[in-house]
Amino acid sequence: MEKIKVGIIGTGFIGPTHIEAIRRLGFVEVAGLAESSQEAADKKAAELGIPKAFGDYRDMLQDSEIQVIHNCTPNHLHFEINKEIILAGKHVISEKPLAMDKEESQELLALARKQEIVHAVNFNYRQHASIQNLHAMIGTGGLGKVNLVHGSYLQDWLLYETDFNWRLAPEVGGKSRAVADIGSHWCDTVQFVTGKKIVEVFSDLATVLPVRKKAMNATSTFSSQDDAEQEYEDIPINTEDYASVLVRFDDGSRGVFTVSQVSAGRKNKLSFEINGSKSSVFWNQEEPEKLWIGHRDKANEVLLADPSLFSPEARSAIHHPGGHNEGWPDALKNMMLNFYSFIRDGKNLKDDKPNFATFEDGHLSMCITDAILESHNRQKWVKVQASKEVHA
Amino acid sequence: MEKIKVGIIGTGFIGPTHIEAIRRLGFVEVAGLAESSQEAADKKAAELGIPKAFGDYRDMLQDSEIQVIHNCTPNHLHFEINKEIILAGKHVISEKPLAMDKEESQELLALARKQEIVHAVNFNYRQHASIQNLHAMIGTGGLGKVNLVHGSYLQDWLLYETDFNWRLAPEVGGKSRAVADIGSHWCDTVQFVTGKKIVEVFSDLATVLPVRKKAMNATSTFSSQDDAEQEYEDIPINTEDYASVLVRFDDGSRGVFTVSQVSAGRKNKLSFEINGSKSSVFWNQEEPEKLWIGHRDKANEVLLADPSLFSPEARSAIHHPGGHNEGWPDALKNMMLNFYSFIRDGKNLKDDKPNFATFEDGHLSMCITDAILESHNRQKWVKVQASKEVHA
Amino acid sequence: MEKIKVGIIGTGFIGPTHIEAIRRLGFVEVAGLAESSQEAADKKAAELGIPKAFGDYRDMLQDSEIQVIHNCTPNHLHFEINKEIILAGKHVISEKPLAMDKEESQELLALARKQEIVHAVNFNYRQHASIQNLHAMIGTGGLGKVNLVHGSYLQDWLLYETDFNWRLAPEVGGKSRAVADIGSHWCDTVQFVTGKKIVEVFSDLATVLPVRKKAMNATSTFSSQDDAEQEYEDIPINTEDYASVLVRFDDGSRGVFTVSQVSAGRKNKLSFEINGSKSSVFWNQEEPEKLWIGHRDKANEVLLADPSLFSPEARSAIHHPGGHNEGWPDALKNMMLNFYSFIRDGKNLKDDKPNFATFEDGHLSMCITDAILESHNRQKWVKVQASKEVHA
Amino acid sequence: MEKIKVGIIGTGFIGPTHIEAIRRLGFVEVAGLAESSQEAADKKAAELGIPKAFGDYRDMLQDSEIQVIHNCTPNHLHFEINKEIILAGKHVISEKPLAMDKEESQELLALARKQEIVHAVNFNYRQHASIQNLHAMIGTGGLGKVNLVHGSYLQDWLLYETDFNWRLAPEVGGKSRAVADIGSHWCDTVQFVTGKKIVEVFSDLATVLPVRKKAMNATSTFSSQDDAEQEYEDIPINTEDYASVLVRFDDGSRGVFTVSQVSAGRKNKLSFEINGSKSSVFWNQEEPEKLWIGHRDKANEVLLADPSLFSPEARSAIHHPGGHNEGWPDALKNMMLNFYSFIRDGKNLKDDKPNFATFEDGHLSMCITDAILESHNRQKWVKVQASKEVHA
Repeated sequence: MEKIKVGIIGTGFIGPTHIEAIRRLGFVEVAGLAESSQEAADKKAAELGIPKAFGDYRDMLQDSEIQVIHNCTPNHLHFEINKEIILAGKHVISEKPLAMDKEESQELLALARKQEIVHAVNFNYRQHASIQNLHAMIGTGGLGKVNLVHGSYLQDWLLYETDFNWRLAPEVGGKSRAVADIGSHWCDTVQFVTGKKIVEVFSDLATVLPVRKKAMNATSTFSSQDDAEQEYEDIPINTEDYASVLVRFDDGSRGVFTVSQVSAGRKNKLSFEINGSKSSVFWNQEEPEKLWIGHRDKANEVLLADPSLFSPEARSAIHHPGGHNEGWPDALKNMMLNFYSFIRDGKNLKDDKPNFATFEDGHLSMCITDAILESHNRQKWVKVQASKEVHA
Repeated sequence: MEKIKVGIIGTGFIGPTHIEAIRRLGFVEVAGLAESSQEAADKKAAELGIPKAFGDYRDMLQDSEIQVIHNCTPNHLHFEINKEIILAGKHVISEKPLAMDKEESQELLALARKQEIVHAVNFNYRQHASIQNLHAMIGTGGLGKVNLVHGSYLQDWLLYETDFNWRLAPEVGGKSRAVADIGSHWCDTVQFVTGKKIVEVFSDLATVLPVRKKAMNATSTFSSQDDAEQEYEDIPINTEDYASVLVRFDDGSRGVFTVSQVSAGRKNKLSFEINGSKSSVFWNQEEPEKLWIGHRDKANEVLLADPSLFSPEARSAIHHPGGHNEGWPDALKNMMLNFYSFIRDGKNLKDDKPNFATFEDGHLSMCITDAILESHNRQKWVKVQASKEVHA
Repeated sequence: MEKIKVGIIGTGFIGPTHIEAIRRLGFVEVAGLAESSQEAADKKAAELGIPKAFGDYRDMLQDSEIQVIHNCTPNHLHFEINKEIILAGKHVISEKPLAMDKEESQELLALARKQEIVHAVNFNYRQHASIQNLHAMIGTGGLGKVNLVHGSYLQDWLLYETDFNWRLAPEVGGKSRAVADIGSHWCDTVQFVTGKKIVEVFSDLATVLPVRKKAMNATSTFSSQDDAEQEYEDIPINTEDYASVLVRFDDGSRGVFTVSQVSAGRKNKLSFEINGSKSSVFWNQEEPEKLWIGHRDKANEVLLADPSLFSPEARSAIHHPGGHNEGWPDALKNMMLNFYSFIRDGKNLKDDKPNFATFEDGHLSMCITDAILESHNRQKWVKVQASKEVHA
Repeated sequence: MEKIKVGIIGTGFIGPTHIEAIRRLGFVEVAGLAESSQEAADKKAAELGIPKAFGDYRDMLQDSEIQVIHNCTPNHLHFEINKEIILAGKHVISEKPLAMDKEESQELLALARKQEIVHAVNFNYRQHASIQNLHAMIGTGGLGKVNLVHGSYLQDWLLYETDFNWRLAPEVGGKSRAVADIGSHWCDTVQFVTGKKIVEVFSDLATVLPVRKKAMNATSTFSSQDDAEQEYEDIPINTEDYASVLVRFDDGSRGVFTVSQVSAGRKNKLSFEINGSKSSVFWNQEEPEKLWIGHRDKANEVLLADPSLFSPEARSAIHHPGGHNEGWPDALKNMMLNFYSFIRDGKNLKDDKPNFATFEDGHLSMCITDAILESHNRQKWVKVQASKEVHA
């Protein structure tokens, strides 16, 4: 069988994880990568065992052998590059956010539809086996009517005032930080499992550390200079470390979530509880193989991911027997498996239902982020205004 | 040593738990109880081994031997009876809420101060050993600056539409239900451990079950009638099952909490996470002996309550070695121990700092509840307006 | 109602916990205590609010008002004092072990039966609400046939070589330490829940710290002397810190347990797992309100103690709604409640089945300990040889 | 860079997991597979995207392009095939057990050394990131002196009498079942983390289900026949479902473990606790990313796998930031990464220390299993008698 050929743009942290996930499939081949210079590209290609190296991604877009492109660049480049990928007629997996605001993401969505390519945005948390199983459970009425959804996404990597990173600069990371980076994952995951859309929000944002200290000699990381002598400059911060958001879903049910990047001890804790008219569930990404199921009239349950205990619809998302835990890399693998199976099987997004997030979900995510920012600024409930094309 | 003599008004669920907690102390004696009729009082007194039985609590208020009265009646009677207790010159422990609104609670607070009695409201959760220890930890800077507080108080006893109870009737339970009953405990506990006051709120309330079914023949509980034949009448419900509340503390820091009485599998889950500039903590009343402590630069900790590992200030709140877990009854015992030690040692609230919640805390609680209701009605941030006497 | 009058011998750590537990009942009165001198007795009686103080326990045994005696003395005094209590015709609750070997405990059992008093040994862990519920579950076939039992009882209070205590001296604590002190609790609890008896053992014992350091000036605890200057003498230790024991039950099923007093971080972790032909359970005394229930064909369960979810037989062992956790003090209260209700209701051990451990259980416990010591010495499987009177 | 070429023998459950793990590396290529017939091989090769398919593994052993062979066949074929692989001069990864008894495994070890190939046995649990970190912690004295090791390996896939599988037949699975299949993993993992060897054992084995029911029409799995009509034949079972084993390590320290394949609710629970003179640890393979660390003088810790919190020696075993949990597939990937890096870097087992289990470990494992069987038969402590070549 001819393998599907793929090219990767950007090989920072996330690019290589895409490559490794793709390789697990067996029917897809990473044929090329693009970096910001030919030298960087050659070095990475050798390191990662990839045949073709491009110093300019535009050249890779012209490679007729390559059918699919992964956009793994920093946020501020997403829009422009996604646009070029689509115009080149390649299928695309973009890292989120799709763009810098909802107007841009709407443009991308319209263009992708016109070009009839397969498009995906890497909302990987919906690909955890337990999340796929929960989606099936809720879809078949396992919780009764879903009434309430509440949770949070907490990290600690920006806890200290000396923590500094490109994501803190609005011109690179975007005008929203905690909401766009991690709140977007929470909303996508919750919308996926419940099958509901967030339609209105009220938010409270805070920049817990309004001034941060940026190391002045960051370039000489490996100098023998003592840490104590490190000099810093004060950088005012304009994006939020924290947000709490009250939400309303399209069926009138309620929810609330909190995001924070300054919560010591929480590394990547995306969690939520859903209260239905019959049962509840709780899931925490730091223990992704467990699903707590709450009951009023019998003991609560903890379902450890296990194909023999999963809904039939979710069995294809889990690849090992119970007790052989899968984790974050396996969710990413599932994302790739679902996306590339869709392509291999000749499906298209007009006629077939994908089991991955598309640019439609990516656009909706941007609309929610924009509504959250607007609500905070106006101190009012704000409706999420997605393009009419979404769900059309 | 002469024991302190105590009288109890109301012997439903909570009254007997007070009695048992008092008896553990050894230096306090439950001398009398009052019920709604002499017959009921005699029966309960015999059952509980209490010498004096009063068919009218007013008679007990005249008993000169009795120095302290516990008000364990339903909510709508709290104000009137608390007032009479104070006017009789007795010390008082009242169940919460102190009254039906903040004007009433302010009147009680002023009267109690004038009469110079010792007054307490039974916010028992701050009396858990781990909570006392956390209060000491935060007070000595163990978490650094407290930036964020988030959590919830979830129950499931009103999950089904056939669940019915006097608390659902506003004229008996009050105009707020979930917020007043359980939200008040969350706010008190969080304010106690952080040493901060909630000064502004924005809320979203919902009555998840707007109509409930009340059994029509509730009086004939023990009839042989089949459950399936049970007849119900539809009762419209006006009080909230659910609320999510954004809060601001007096130092500008933020928080959010959710309350629900319709969350299957959650029996009495009061929980919160606090994120400080150095460390975080998480506590859950369903596992009250554990305190999770989160760190950025080292492994997270789980502190199982243990006198040898507690702050010196908190050691008097724990009475057994590590691994001999204390629970809900022990928190109530601590409440009684702190209150009666205060009285035994001849202290007074003008000069001495109590280690229990007073009518000041009870009044503040009512002010927060009233602000939450007002915010929901006006869809705006509302300031908590406590009497100027509070914290005076 | 006339209250049952009780006297306590010994008021170290465990005596006052008995007193507090008794007082919670309401129908029993602690009328007296005995200490090693009149001065010590008077001081303790004042402190604990007890009317009568005896400088010699023999005088308390002559007090006709007192019907029940609690033996809360150190191990080496148990036999002699228990004997005198029985001969005085009083009912008795003894701390475990009943005596120093199985011949002594057999003598006590025979004597207690002859005198027709009510006798109990304080195996308190079987009184936890969740353990009572598990006993009912297994009794009604909830796990199927019980095939395997495995677990441990781990503590860390003797971890360091400078940890020293009277229990380390064989002439006071007895010839077995970890097995007798904590292994006995494990065996009693497991035998209670399964309804099986341990009939054969193979053991491996170790004294992890064969020499300990005893502080030479322990009497001047409050001297200003620096810790670093503390002088120690080396004391050889002959009793075990650790044991692992293979066991066989009377129906041929198997088990194994480990005890250790040198396991850092384990404070009082008595735990066991039981594997039945249908389901499994796991219980850990450091989280006594939880029962894990394991299944092959459905999600595992965690049952948080809750009267509405308990077996009807176990409901009297739990006194608060779900989520209002009871702990170690409540198990002790249950012990007292069951024992004193038995007496109050005029029951006797010849005709009525007690819901507490009696001297029969105490004797059986000594037989198991003796068999474990013998097995270790002979390096062979050894049968537990209980008096024929047991289970007669 | 030229990729290392690999061939796989056997493509049941474990073969494809090897293939997927290998592919993640990027510098190794699965060039061929062998199955029991050409037809089966062709089918699997197409399915898994592998270029060469062999109907006889001997032909693959002659393929000069292929440098490494994975032996993923059933137990009874391991010895013969391993021997042929070695004689063909290929490097080898064998599934465990290496052979059917310790004489055979000794022969393989000697042969592999003579041929100077790189040999590995797939003890994958030592490759979990947290296990690698624990190995480093203990090696640098983090727990003090290791005194006690206790734990278990529990599964439930053979709980019911109708559970039947080739592993139950001694001629295919071997004369030991639970001990050889899962006890071997427990021993290897514990020996790896502590750096100690098990030198003496006393065991108690049981066949909980001495007769099992084998479906008579297993071949017609997809017939429409009703389950209730399924006919079974009774098969007597001679291998153990359960074992508890007392162990002694080479430094005189003690341990004990239990294995069972009939423990409902336990899917793959390999767990152990290690008690050192300073601290303890507990690890459970069903939550592989967590390490509990127990202390006497401070709060216990739970270390969620995190490169920034790991020992420097263990950082290469973890590939994602904290909170991005790795699981069972990642441990297998680490196994492959360590093995193939060793080969890529031109190392050899005579001069270089491997970070994976070799045939030496595989032989030691067989010696322990044999000693356990002998101890049970003779009811005595039995010494583990490994070839003198081990640790030579």
